Amino acid sequence: MQNETHGARFATRWGEDPGWRGCIGFITVPNISLSFLEFLKIAPEGYVATEQHTYMTKDGMPTKFDFTVEGINEAVSQMEHAARVLKVLGVDLIAQSGTPYSFCHEGGFAFSRELRAKIEKDTGLPVVMMGLAVSNAVKRMGCKTVAVSSTYYYEPWREKYTKFLEDGGLKVLGNENWVSLGFFPDQESVNWYRTREAGARKYHPMSMVYRSVRKVAKMYPEADCYIQSGAGVFSVDIIEPLEKELRKPVITSAAAQFFEIFYRMGTFEAIPGRGSLLASLEKGP
Amino acid sequence: MQNETHGARFATRWGEDPGWRGCIGFITVPNISLSFLEFLKIAPEGYVATEQHTYMTKDGMPTKFDFTVEGINEAVSQMEHAARVLKVLGVDLIAQSGTPYSFCHEGGFAFSRELRAKIEKDTGLPVVMMGLAVSNAVKRMGCKTVAVSSTYYYEPWREKYTKFLEDGGLKVLGNENWVSLGFFPDQESVNWYRTREAGARKYHPMSMVYRSVRKVAKMYPEADCYIQSGAGVFSVDIIEPLEKELRKPVITSAAAQFFEIFYRMGTFEAIPGRGSLLASLEKGP
Repeated sequence: MQNETHGARFATRWGEDPGWRGCIGFITVPNISLSFLEFLKIAPEGYVATEQHTYMTKDGMPTKFDFTVEGINEAVSQMEHAARVLKVLGVDLIAQSGTPYSFCHEGGFAFSRELRAKIEKDTGLPVVMMGLAVSNAVKRMGCKTVAVSSTYYYEPWREKYTKFLEDGGLKVLGNENWVSLGFFPDQESVNWYRTREAGARKYHPMSMVYRSVRKVAKMYPEADCYIQSGAGVFSVDIIEPLEKELRKPVITSAAAQFFEIFYRMGTFEAIPGRGSLLASLEKGP
Repeated sequence: MQNETHGARFATRWGEDPGWRGCIGFITVPNISLSFLEFLKIAPEGYVATEQHTYMTKDGMPTKFDFTVEGINEAVSQMEHAARVLKVLGVDLIAQSGTPYSFCHEGGFAFSRELRAKIEKDTGLPVVMMGLAVSNAVKRMGCKTVAVSSTYYYEPWREKYTKFLEDGGLKVLGNENWVSLGFFPDQESVNWYRTREAGARKYHPMSMVYRSVRKVAKMYPEADCYIQSGAGVFSVDIIEPLEKELRKPVITSAAAQFFEIFYRMGTFEAIPGRGSLLASLEKGP
Protein backbone atom coordinates (compact mmCIF):
# COMPACT_ATOMS: atom_id res chain seq x y z
CA MET A 1 0.00 0.00 0.00
CA GLN A 2 1.18 3.46 -0.84
CA ASN A 3 2.46 5.48 2.06
CA GLU A 4 0.06 8.38 2.03
CA THR A 5 2.24 11.40 2.39
CA HIS A 6 1.32 13.41 -0.64
CA GLY A 7 0.97 16.58 1.38
CA ALA A 8 2.44 15.91 4.76
CA ARG A 9 5.95 15.08 3.68
CA PHE A 10 8.51 17.45 4.97
CA ALA A 11 11.37 19.39 3.43
CA THR A 12 13.52 17.23 1.20
CA ARG A 13 15.11 19.90 -0.95
CA TRP A 14 17.90 22.41 -0.55
CA GLY A 15 16.47 25.57 0.94
CA GLU A 16 12.94 24.26 1.21
CA ASP A 17 10.96 25.83 4.00
CA PRO A 18 7.61 24.43 5.12
CA GLY A 19 4.65 26.33 3.79
CA TRP A 20 6.61 27.95 0.97
CA ARG A 21 3.47 27.84 -1.09
CA GLY A 22 1.04 28.77 1.59
CA CYS A 23 -0.21 28.35 5.11
CA ILE A 24 -3.93 27.69 5.44
CA GLY A 25 -5.54 28.82 8.68
CA PHE A 26 -8.47 26.56 9.53
CA ILE A 27 -11.31 27.75 11.75
CA THR A 28 -12.69 24.52 13.09
CA VAL A 29 -15.56 23.10 15.05
CA PRO A 30 -15.00 22.22 18.71
CA ASN A 31 -13.72 18.81 17.79
CA ILE A 32 -10.54 17.16 16.61
CA SER A 33 -10.95 18.26 13.04
CA LEU A 34 -10.83 15.47 10.50
CA SER A 35 -10.85 17.78 7.49
CA PHE A 36 -7.67 19.38 8.82
CA LEU A 37 -6.02 15.94 8.82
CA GLU A 38 -7.38 15.19 5.37
CA PHE A 39 -6.04 18.51 4.12
CA LEU A 40 -2.53 17.67 5.36
CA LYS A 41 -2.89 14.33 3.63
CA ILE A 42 -3.93 15.52 0.18
CA ALA A 43 -2.44 19.01 -0.18
CA PRO A 44 0.29 19.40 -2.79
CA GLU A 45 3.73 20.00 -1.36
CA GLY A 46 4.59 23.44 -0.10
CA TYR A 47 1.47 23.75 2.04
CA VAL A 48 1.17 23.78 5.81
CA ALA A 49 -1.87 24.42 7.94
CA THR A 50 -2.76 25.66 11.39
CA GLU A 51 -6.00 25.67 13.35
CA GLN A 52 -8.04 27.90 15.61
CA HIS A 53 -11.08 26.31 17.22
CA THR A 54 -14.44 27.89 17.83
CA TYR A 55 -16.48 26.38 20.61
CA MET A 56 -19.73 26.41 22.50
CA THR A 57 -20.02 27.76 26.02
CA LYS A 58 -22.03 27.05 29.14
CA ASP A 59 -21.96 29.67 31.89
CA GLY A 60 -19.19 31.38 29.94
CA MET A 61 -16.96 28.28 29.86
CA PRO A 62 -16.06 26.22 26.79
CA THR A 63 -18.31 23.19 26.74
CA LYS A 64 -18.96 20.07 24.69
CA PHE A 65 -20.27 20.22 21.16
CA ASP A 66 -24.00 19.68 21.47
CA PHE A 67 -25.32 19.32 17.90
CA THR A 68 -27.99 22.01 18.30
CA VAL A 69 -28.59 24.82 15.84
CA GLU A 70 -28.10 27.27 18.73
CA GLY A 71 -24.80 25.68 19.63
CA ILE A 72 -23.54 25.96 16.06
CA ASN A 73 -24.65 29.58 15.86
CA GLU A 74 -22.74 30.40 19.02
CA ALA A 75 -19.62 28.94 17.45
CA VAL A 76 -20.31 30.88 14.23
CA SER A 77 -20.45 34.08 16.28
CA GLN A 78 -16.77 33.49 17.14
CA MET A 79 -15.69 33.22 13.52
CA GLU A 80 -14.70 36.84 13.07
CA HIS A 81 -12.56 36.74 16.17
CA ALA A 82 -10.89 33.47 15.19
CA ALA A 83 -10.22 34.91 11.74
CA ARG A 84 -8.43 37.89 13.29
CA VAL A 85 -6.26 35.56 15.35
CA LEU A 86 -5.33 33.64 12.20
CA LYS A 87 -4.65 36.89 10.39
CA VAL A 88 -2.08 38.00 12.96
CA LEU A 89 -0.36 34.61 12.68
CA GLY A 90 0.34 35.40 9.05
CA VAL A 91 -1.76 32.75 7.25
CA ASP A 92 -2.45 33.14 3.53
CA LEU A 93 -6.07 32.00 3.46
CA ILE A 94 -8.73 31.35 6.07
CA ALA A 95 -10.77 28.16 5.66
CA GLN A 96 -13.74 27.40 7.85
CA SER A 97 -14.48 23.72 8.49
CA GLY A 98 -17.96 22.50 9.34
CA THR A 99 -20.74 22.69 6.77
CA PRO A 100 -23.43 23.69 9.32
CA TYR A 101 -21.60 26.98 9.97
CA SER A 102 -22.96 28.07 6.61
CA PHE A 103 -26.55 26.94 7.00
CA CYS A 104 -27.58 26.96 10.68
CA HIS A 105 -27.99 30.71 10.90
CA GLU A 106 -31.48 32.11 10.42
CA GLY A 107 -30.18 34.12 7.47
CA GLY A 108 -28.99 30.99 5.65
CA PHE A 109 -27.25 31.33 2.31
CA ALA A 110 -27.38 35.14 2.19
CA PHE A 111 -26.05 35.43 5.74
CA SER A 112 -23.09 33.17 4.98
CA ARG A 113 -22.14 35.10 1.87
CA GLU A 114 -22.27 38.34 3.84
CA LEU A 115 -20.28 36.88 6.73
CA ARG A 116 -17.60 35.67 4.34
CA ALA A 117 -17.43 39.05 2.60
CA LYS A 118 -17.21 40.80 5.95
CA ILE A 119 -14.31 38.64 7.16
CA GLU A 120 -12.52 39.02 3.83
CA LYS A 121 -12.79 42.78 4.12
CA ASP A 122 -11.74 42.76 7.76
CA THR A 123 -8.68 40.53 7.30
CA GLY A 124 -7.74 41.25 3.70
CA LEU A 125 -7.46 37.49 3.17
CA PRO A 126 -9.43 35.07 1.01
CA VAL A 127 -12.00 33.18 3.11
CA VAL A 128 -13.49 29.79 2.25
CA MET A 129 -16.62 28.59 4.04
CA MET A 130 -17.29 24.91 3.72
CA GLY A 131 -21.03 25.11 3.10
CA LEU A 132 -20.71 27.77 0.42
CA ALA A 133 -17.87 25.75 -1.11
CA VAL A 134 -20.19 22.75 -1.53
CA SER A 135 -22.74 24.87 -3.35
CA ASN A 136 -20.02 26.31 -5.61
CA ALA A 137 -18.52 22.89 -6.30
CA VAL A 138 -21.82 21.42 -7.49
CA LYS A 139 -22.15 24.28 -9.96
CA ARG A 140 -18.51 23.91 -11.02
CA MET A 141 -19.32 20.33 -11.99
CA GLY A 142 -22.23 21.60 -14.10
CA CYS A 143 -24.91 19.96 -11.95
CA LYS A 144 -28.36 21.34 -11.19
CA THR A 145 -30.03 18.60 -9.17
CA VAL A 146 -28.54 16.87 -6.16
CA ALA A 147 -29.30 14.18 -3.62
CA VAL A 148 -27.61 14.44 -0.25
CA SER A 149 -26.22 11.96 2.23
CA SER A 150 -26.06 14.09 5.35
CA THR A 151 -24.60 11.25 7.44
CA TYR A 152 -24.64 12.15 11.18
CA TYR A 153 -26.68 15.37 10.80
CA TYR A 154 -29.67 15.58 13.04
CA GLU A 155 -33.09 16.57 11.88
CA PRO A 156 -33.00 20.41 12.18
CA TRP A 157 -29.61 20.50 10.40
CA ARG A 158 -30.87 18.32 7.60
CA GLU A 159 -33.87 20.60 6.95
CA LYS A 160 -31.77 23.73 7.07
CA TYR A 161 -29.19 22.24 4.73
CA THR A 162 -31.80 21.39 2.12
CA LYS A 163 -33.13 24.95 2.26
CA PHE A 164 -29.58 26.34 2.08
CA LEU A 165 -28.77 24.38 -1.08
CA GLU A 166 -32.04 25.42 -2.69
CA ASP A 167 -31.45 29.07 -1.79
CA GLY A 168 -28.12 28.62 -3.57
CA GLY A 169 -29.96 27.66 -6.74
CA LEU A 170 -29.85 23.85 -6.64
CA LYS A 171 -32.76 21.43 -6.80
CA VAL A 172 -32.54 18.97 -3.88
CA LEU A 173 -34.22 15.68 -4.77
CA GLY A 174 -33.60 14.16 -1.37
CA ASN A 175 -31.54 14.53 1.79
CA GLU A 176 -31.09 11.48 4.00
CA ASN A 177 -29.25 11.09 7.28
CA TRP A 178 -28.24 7.91 9.07
CA VAL A 179 -31.51 7.75 10.94
CA SER A 180 -33.71 8.23 7.87
CA LEU A 181 -31.59 5.64 6.05
CA GLY A 182 -32.12 3.20 8.92
CA PHE A 183 -28.42 2.91 9.80
CA PHE A 184 -29.09 3.97 13.40
CA PRO A 185 -32.33 3.61 15.40
CA ASP A 186 -32.32 7.27 16.49
CA GLN A 187 -30.20 10.42 16.57
CA GLU A 188 -29.09 9.80 20.13
CA SER A 189 -27.31 6.66 19.02
CA VAL A 190 -25.60 8.57 16.20
CA ASN A 191 -24.42 11.29 18.59
CA TRP A 192 -23.40 8.85 21.28
CA TYR A 193 -21.04 7.14 18.92
CA ARG A 194 -19.11 10.33 18.34
CA THR A 195 -18.70 11.38 21.96
CA ARG A 196 -15.28 11.34 23.49
CA GLU A 197 -15.92 9.59 26.77
CA ALA A 198 -13.77 7.51 29.03
CA GLY A 199 -10.65 8.40 27.08
CA ALA A 200 -11.96 6.97 23.81
CA ARG A 201 -12.25 8.85 20.53
CA LYS A 202 -14.66 7.23 18.13
CA TYR A 203 -14.92 8.04 14.44
CA HIS A 204 -17.77 6.93 12.25
CA PRO A 205 -16.16 4.42 9.90
CA MET A 206 -15.62 4.79 6.17
CA SER A 207 -18.01 1.93 5.43
CA MET A 208 -20.94 3.90 6.87
CA VAL A 209 -20.10 6.97 4.82
CA TYR A 210 -19.65 4.93 1.66
CA ARG A 211 -22.83 2.92 2.11
CA SER A 212 -24.95 5.96 2.86
CA VAL A 213 -23.96 7.58 -0.45
CA ARG A 214 -24.67 4.32 -2.28
CA LYS A 215 -28.09 4.08 -0.66
CA VAL A 216 -28.95 7.72 -1.43
CA ALA A 217 -27.93 7.13 -5.06
CA LYS A 218 -30.27 4.16 -5.21
CA MET A 219 -33.13 6.23 -3.78
CA TYR A 220 -32.58 9.20 -6.12
CA PRO A 221 -31.11 7.77 -9.33
CA GLU A 222 -32.07 10.80 -11.38
CA ALA A 223 -29.84 13.29 -9.46
CA ASP A 224 -27.06 15.01 -11.44
CA CYS A 225 -24.66 14.46 -8.56
CA TYR A 226 -24.43 13.28 -4.95
CA ILE A 227 -23.34 15.30 -1.96
CA GLN A 228 -21.81 13.63 1.04
CA SER A 229 -22.13 16.22 3.76
CA GLY A 230 -20.41 16.28 7.13
CA ALA A 231 -16.70 16.92 7.58
CA GLY A 232 -16.77 14.98 10.83
CA VAL A 233 -16.14 11.82 8.84
CA PHE A 234 -13.22 10.96 6.58
CA SER A 235 -14.35 11.26 3.00
CA VAL A 236 -11.57 11.95 0.50
CA ASP A 237 -10.64 8.30 -0.01
CA ILE A 238 -14.12 7.12 -0.98
CA ILE A 239 -14.88 9.75 -3.61
CA GLU A 240 -13.13 8.06 -6.52
CA PRO A 241 -14.54 4.56 -5.86
CA LEU A 242 -18.03 6.05 -5.52
CA GLU A 243 -17.74 8.05 -8.73
CA LYS A 244 -16.59 4.97 -10.61
CA GLU A 245 -19.57 3.02 -9.31
CA LEU A 246 -22.24 5.71 -9.64
CA ARG A 247 -20.92 7.29 -12.87
CA LYS A 248 -21.73 10.74 -11.45
CA PRO A 249 -19.83 13.41 -9.55
CA VAL A 250 -19.66 12.92 -5.78
CA ILE A 251 -18.99 16.09 -3.80
CA THR A 252 -17.98 15.79 -0.16
CA SER A 253 -17.79 18.73 2.24
CA ALA A 254 -14.04 18.34 2.67
CA ALA A 255 -13.30 17.97 -1.06
CA ALA A 256 -15.39 21.07 -1.83
CA GLN A 257 -13.51 23.05 0.81
CA PHE A 258 -10.11 21.87 -0.46
CA PHE A 259 -11.07 22.63 -4.07
CA GLU A 260 -11.98 26.20 -3.18
CA ILE A 261 -8.82 26.64 -1.09
CA PHE A 262 -6.57 25.66 -3.99
CA TYR A 263 -8.67 27.58 -6.48
CA ARG A 264 -8.41 30.77 -4.45
CA MET A 265 -4.69 30.17 -3.84
CA GLY A 266 -4.19 29.80 -7.58
CA THR A 267 -2.86 26.26 -7.26
CA PHE A 268 -3.99 24.60 -10.45
CA GLU A 269 -2.74 21.07 -10.47
CA ALA A 270 -4.73 17.87 -10.19
CA ILE A 271 -5.07 16.29 -6.75
CA PRO A 272 -4.89 12.69 -7.91
CA GLY A 273 -7.18 9.85 -6.89
CA ARG A 274 -9.71 11.93 -4.99
CA GLY A 275 -12.54 12.38 -7.45
CA SER A 276 -13.43 14.55 -10.39
CA LEU A 277 -13.74 17.85 -8.53
CA LEU A 278 -10.19 17.87 -7.15
CA ALA A 279 -8.86 16.45 -10.42
CA SER A 280 -10.51 19.35 -12.26
CA LEU A 281 -8.11 21.84 -10.66
CA GLU A 282 -5.77 20.94 -13.48
CA LYS A 283 -8.10 22.66 -15.93
CA GLY A 284 -7.41 26.02 -14.29
CA PRO A 285 -9.85 28.72 -13.22
CA MET B 1 17.57 11.57 1.34
CA GLN B 2 15.06 9.91 3.60
CA ASN B 3 11.51 11.08 3.19
CA GLU B 4 10.84 12.48 6.61
CA THR B 5 7.51 11.09 7.55
CA HIS B 6 8.24 9.27 10.77
CA GLY B 7 5.23 10.79 12.49
CA ALA B 8 3.13 12.37 9.81
CA ARG B 9 2.44 9.29 7.77
CA PHE B 10 -1.16 8.32 7.64
CA ALA B 11 -3.11 5.15 8.17
CA THR B 12 -1.58 2.20 6.36
CA ARG B 13 -3.08 -0.63 8.37
CA TRP B 14 -6.41 -2.38 8.57
CA GLY B 15 -8.60 -0.55 11.07
CA GLU B 16 -6.02 2.11 11.86
CA ASP B 17 -7.53 5.40 12.95
CA PRO B 18 -5.46 8.56 13.25
CA GLY B 19 -4.47 9.43 16.77
CA TRP B 20 -5.08 5.91 18.07
CA ARG B 21 -2.27 6.50 20.51
CA GLY B 22 -3.07 10.04 21.40
CA CYS B 23 -4.00 13.52 20.31
CA ILE B 24 -1.80 16.29 21.67
CA GLY B 25 -3.46 19.68 22.05
CA PHE B 26 -0.89 22.43 21.58
CA ILE B 27 -1.39 25.88 23.05
CA THR B 28 0.77 28.04 20.87
CA VAL B 29 2.16 31.53 20.55
CA PRO B 30 0.50 33.92 18.08
CA ASN B 31 2.61 32.61 15.24
CA ILE B 32 2.70 29.72 12.80
CA SER B 33 4.08 27.28 15.32
CA LEU B 34 7.23 25.51 14.21
CA SER B 35 7.30 23.14 17.18
CA PHE B 36 3.86 21.88 16.11
CA LEU B 37 5.32 21.03 12.69
CA GLU B 38 8.38 19.42 14.28
CA PHE B 39 6.12 17.37 16.53
CA LEU B 40 4.21 15.99 13.54
CA LYS B 41 7.54 15.18 11.95
CA ILE B 42 9.14 13.27 14.82
CA ALA B 43 6.22 11.75 16.75
CA PRO B 44 5.93 7.96 16.66
CA GLU B 45 2.98 6.67 14.69
CA GLY B 46 -0.45 6.80 16.26
CA TYR B 47 -0.17 10.44 17.28
CA VAL B 48 -2.04 13.43 15.90
CA ALA B 49 -2.02 16.99 17.11
CA THR B 50 -4.23 20.05 17.10
CA GLU B 51 -3.61 23.67 18.03
CA GLN B 52 -5.23 26.54 19.84
CA HIS B 53 -3.47 29.90 19.62
CA THR B 54 -3.10 32.47 22.34
CA TYR B 55 -2.52 36.02 21.17
CA MET B 56 -1.87 39.57 22.15
CA THR B 57 -4.49 42.29 21.84
CA LYS B 58 -4.65 45.97 21.12
CA ASP B 59 -7.90 47.77 21.90
CA GLY B 60 -9.44 44.36 22.50
CA MET B 61 -8.48 43.03 19.04
CA PRO B 62 -5.94 40.30 18.29
CA THR B 63 -2.71 41.98 17.26
CA LYS B 64 0.80 41.13 16.14
CA PHE B 65 3.26 39.38 18.41
CA ASP B 66 5.40 42.14 19.83
CA PHE B 67 8.21 40.40 21.75
CA THR B 68 7.58 42.31 24.98
CA VAL B 69 7.33 40.69 28.38
CA GLU B 70 3.90 42.33 28.77
CA GLY B 71 2.77 40.87 25.45
CA ILE B 72 3.84 37.39 26.47
CA ASN B 73 2.11 37.73 29.82
CA GLU B 74 -1.12 38.74 28.12
CA ALA B 75 -0.91 35.57 26.02
CA VAL B 76 -0.13 33.54 29.15
CA SER B 77 -3.30 34.89 30.75
CA GLN B 78 -5.27 33.11 28.00
CA MET B 79 -3.72 29.73 28.72
CA GLU B 80 -6.42 28.48 31.05
CA HIS B 81 -9.12 29.34 28.56
CA ALA B 82 -7.27 27.74 25.64
CA ALA B 83 -6.74 24.64 27.79
CA ARG B 84 -10.49 24.39 28.39
CA VAL B 85 -11.15 24.61 24.67
CA LEU B 86 -8.66 21.80 24.04
CA LYS B 87 -10.23 19.77 26.84
CA VAL B 88 -13.67 19.87 25.22
CA LEU B 89 -12.13 18.75 21.92
CA GLY B 90 -11.08 15.54 23.62
CA VAL B 91 -7.28 15.82 23.53
CA ASP B 92 -5.21 13.50 25.69
CA LEU B 93 -2.53 15.95 26.79
CA ILE B 94 -2.11 19.72 26.68
CA ALA B 95 1.30 20.99 25.57
CA GLN B 96 2.16 24.66 25.69
CA SER B 97 4.68 25.87 23.10
CA GLY B 98 6.86 28.92 23.68
CA THR B 99 9.53 28.88 26.39
CA PRO B 100 8.90 32.50 27.49
CA TYR B 101 5.41 31.53 28.69
CA SER B 102 7.17 29.86 31.61
CA PHE B 103 9.59 32.63 32.52
CA CYS B 104 8.14 36.03 31.56
CA HIS B 105 5.73 36.19 34.47
CA GLU B 106 6.87 38.09 37.56
CA GLY B 107 6.42 34.90 39.58
CA GLY B 108 8.87 32.97 37.37
CA PHE B 109 9.51 29.31 38.06
CA ALA B 110 7.10 29.03 41.01
CA PHE B 111 4.32 30.74 39.05
CA SER B 112 4.70 28.37 36.11
CA ARG B 113 4.58 25.30 38.32
CA GLU B 114 1.44 26.61 39.97
CA LEU B 115 -0.16 27.51 36.65
CA ARG B 116 0.53 24.05 35.30
CA ALA B 117 -0.88 22.41 38.44
CA LYS B 118 -3.96 24.61 38.24
CA ILE B 119 -4.65 23.72 34.60
CA GLU B 120 -4.06 20.04 35.29
CA LYS B 121 -6.59 20.17 38.10
CA ASP B 122 -9.07 22.15 36.03
CA THR B 123 -8.91 19.92 32.95
CA GLY B 124 -7.97 16.58 34.46
CA LEU B 125 -5.32 16.27 31.74
CA PRO B 126 -1.53 16.17 31.88
CA VAL B 127 -0.06 19.57 30.98
CA VAL B 128 3.43 20.17 29.62
CA MET B 129 4.89 23.68 29.67
CA MET B 130 7.88 24.16 27.43
CA GLY B 131 10.03 26.18 29.85
CA LEU B 132 9.50 23.78 32.72
CA ALA B 133 10.20 20.90 30.35
CA VAL B 134 13.64 22.35 29.52
CA SER B 135 14.51 22.55 33.20
CA ASN B 136 13.34 18.97 33.75
CA ALA B 137 15.21 17.70 30.70
CA VAL B 138 18.54 19.12 31.86
CA LYS B 139 18.12 17.31 35.17
CA ARG B 140 17.04 14.12 33.40
CA MET B 141 20.38 14.19 31.56
CA GLY B 142 22.18 14.48 34.92
CA CYS B 143 23.50 17.99 34.25
CA LYS B 144 23.94 20.77 36.80
CA THR B 145 25.58 23.57 34.84
CA VAL B 146 24.34 24.93 31.53
CA ALA B 147 25.19 27.52 28.90
CA VAL B 148 22.35 28.86 26.80
CA SER B 149 21.98 29.94 23.21
CA SER B 150 18.80 31.98 23.41
CA THR B 151 18.84 32.77 19.69
CA TYR B 152 16.26 35.49 18.84
CA TYR B 153 15.36 36.34 22.47
CA TYR B 154 15.57 40.00 23.29
CA GLU B 155 17.31 41.34 26.34
CA PRO B 156 14.53 41.23 28.98
CA TRP B 157 13.65 37.64 27.98
CA ARG B 158 17.26 36.58 28.19
CA GLU B 159 17.64 37.94 31.73
CA LYS B 160 14.39 36.39 32.89
CA TYR B 161 15.29 33.04 31.36
CA THR B 162 18.61 32.92 33.21
CA LYS B 163 16.85 33.66 36.49
CA PHE B 164 14.18 31.06 35.70
CA LEU B 165 16.73 28.30 35.11
CA GLU B 166 18.61 29.23 38.28
CA ASP B 167 15.38 29.24 40.30
CA GLY B 168 14.90 25.74 38.93
CA GLY B 169 18.20 24.69 40.52
CA LEU B 170 20.64 24.95 37.58
CA LYS B 171 23.82 26.95 37.39
CA VAL B 172 23.81 29.14 34.28
CA LEU B 173 27.36 29.83 33.10
CA GLY B 174 26.24 32.05 30.24
CA ASN B 175 23.23 32.99 28.12
CA GLU B 176 23.86 34.54 24.73
CA ASN B 177 21.42 35.76 22.11
CA TRP B 178 22.07 36.63 18.49
CA VAL B 179 22.88 40.22 19.35
CA SER B 180 25.34 39.39 22.13
CA LEU B 181 26.94 36.81 19.83
CA GLY B 182 27.34 39.44 17.14
CA PHE B 183 25.13 37.65 14.59
CA PHE B 184 22.85 40.70 14.26
CA PRO B 185 23.71 44.36 14.91
CA ASP B 186 20.68 44.90 17.15
CA GLN B 187 17.42 43.31 18.32
CA GLU B 188 15.38 45.27 15.81
CA SER B 189 17.15 43.47 12.98
CA VAL B 190 16.47 40.11 14.63
CA ASN B 191 12.77 40.89 15.04
CA TRP B 192 12.44 42.38 11.59
CA TYR B 193 13.62 39.18 10.03
CA ARG B 194 10.77 37.21 11.62
CA THR B 195 7.95 39.54 10.69
CA ARG B 196 5.38 38.40 8.19
CA GLU B 197 5.13 41.38 5.92
CA ALA B 198 4.23 41.78 2.29
CA GLY B 199 3.05 38.19 2.10
CA ALA B 200 6.43 36.74 3.07
CA ARG B 201 7.06 34.36 5.95
CA LYS B 202 10.67 34.31 7.01
CA TYR B 203 12.23 31.70 9.27
CA HIS B 204 15.63 32.07 10.87
CA PRO B 205 17.71 29.43 9.11
CA MET B 206 19.19 26.29 10.64
CA SER B 207 22.72 27.54 10.11
CA MET B 208 22.14 30.42 12.53
CA VAL B 209 20.75 28.12 15.19
CA TYR B 210 23.56 25.62 14.73
CA ARG B 211 26.32 28.22 14.76
CA SER B 212 24.98 29.98 17.83
CA VAL B 213 25.15 26.75 19.85
CA ARG B 214 28.67 26.09 18.57
CA LYS B 215 29.75 29.59 19.56
CA VAL B 216 28.17 29.35 23.02
CA ALA B 217 29.96 26.03 23.53
CA LYS B 218 33.26 27.70 22.66
CA MET B 219 32.59 30.53 25.13
CA TYR B 220 31.55 28.21 27.97
CA PRO B 221 33.45 24.95 27.44
CA GLU B 222 33.02 23.83 31.05
CA ALA B 223 29.17 23.60 30.91
CA ASP B 224 27.64 20.14 31.52
CA CYS B 225 25.23 20.72 28.65
CA TYR B 226 23.99 23.32 26.19
CA ILE B 227 20.49 24.68 25.87
CA GLN B 228 19.17 25.99 22.59
CA SER B 229 16.18 28.04 23.56
CA GLY B 230 13.45 29.37 21.31
CA ALA B 231 10.87 27.18 19.63
CA GLY B 232 10.48 29.78 16.90
CA VAL B 233 13.32 28.10 15.02
CA PHE B 234 13.57 24.54 13.76
CA SER B 235 15.88 22.62 16.05
CA VAL B 236 15.31 18.86 16.11
CA ASP B 237 17.52 18.13 13.12
CA ILE B 238 20.64 19.83 14.49
CA ILE B 239 20.69 18.18 17.93
CA GLU B 240 22.44 14.99 16.93
CA PRO B 241 25.16 16.67 14.82
CA LEU B 242 25.81 19.16 17.65
CA GLU B 243 26.03 16.44 20.30
CA LYS B 244 28.49 14.49 18.19
CA GLU B 245 30.64 17.58 17.80
CA LEU B 246 30.41 18.93 21.33
CA ARG B 247 30.37 15.54 23.14
CA LYS B 248 27.74 16.90 25.52
CA PRO B 249 23.95 16.84 25.69
CA VAL B 250 22.19 19.55 23.71
CA ILE B 251 18.66 20.35 24.90
CA THR B 252 16.39 22.37 22.64
CA SER B 253 13.07 23.82 23.73
CA ALA B 254 11.15 21.66 21.28
CA ALA B 255 13.01 18.44 22.14
CA ALA B 256 12.42 19.05 25.85
CA GLN B 257 8.73 19.60 25.24
CA PHE B 258 8.43 16.47 23.08
CA PHE B 259 10.33 14.39 25.63
CA GLU B 260 7.96 15.39 28.39
CA ILE B 261 4.91 14.81 26.17
CA PHE B 262 5.93 11.22 25.44
CA TYR B 263 7.07 10.65 29.01
CA ARG B 264 3.72 11.75 30.39
CA MET B 265 1.87 9.76 27.71
CA GLY B 266 3.85 6.68 28.73
CA THR B 267 5.36 6.28 25.25
CA PHE B 268 8.76 4.81 25.94
CA GLU B 269 10.48 4.20 22.66
CA ALA B 270 13.52 5.95 21.24
CA ILE B 271 12.89 8.84 18.86
CA PRO B 272 15.83 8.12 16.57
CA GLY B 273 18.38 10.60 15.25
CA ARG B 274 17.26 13.57 17.36
CA GLY B 275 19.76 13.59 20.20
CA SER B 276 20.33 11.85 23.52
CA LEU B 277 17.29 13.21 25.34
CA LEU B 278 14.70 11.84 22.90
CA ALA B 279 16.71 8.65 22.47
CA SER B 280 16.61 8.19 26.27
CA LEU B 281 12.85 7.59 26.17
CA GLU B 282 13.73 3.99 25.42
CA LYS B 283 15.11 3.60 28.93
CA GLY B 284 11.64 4.09 30.38
CA PRO B 285 10.51 6.33 33.24
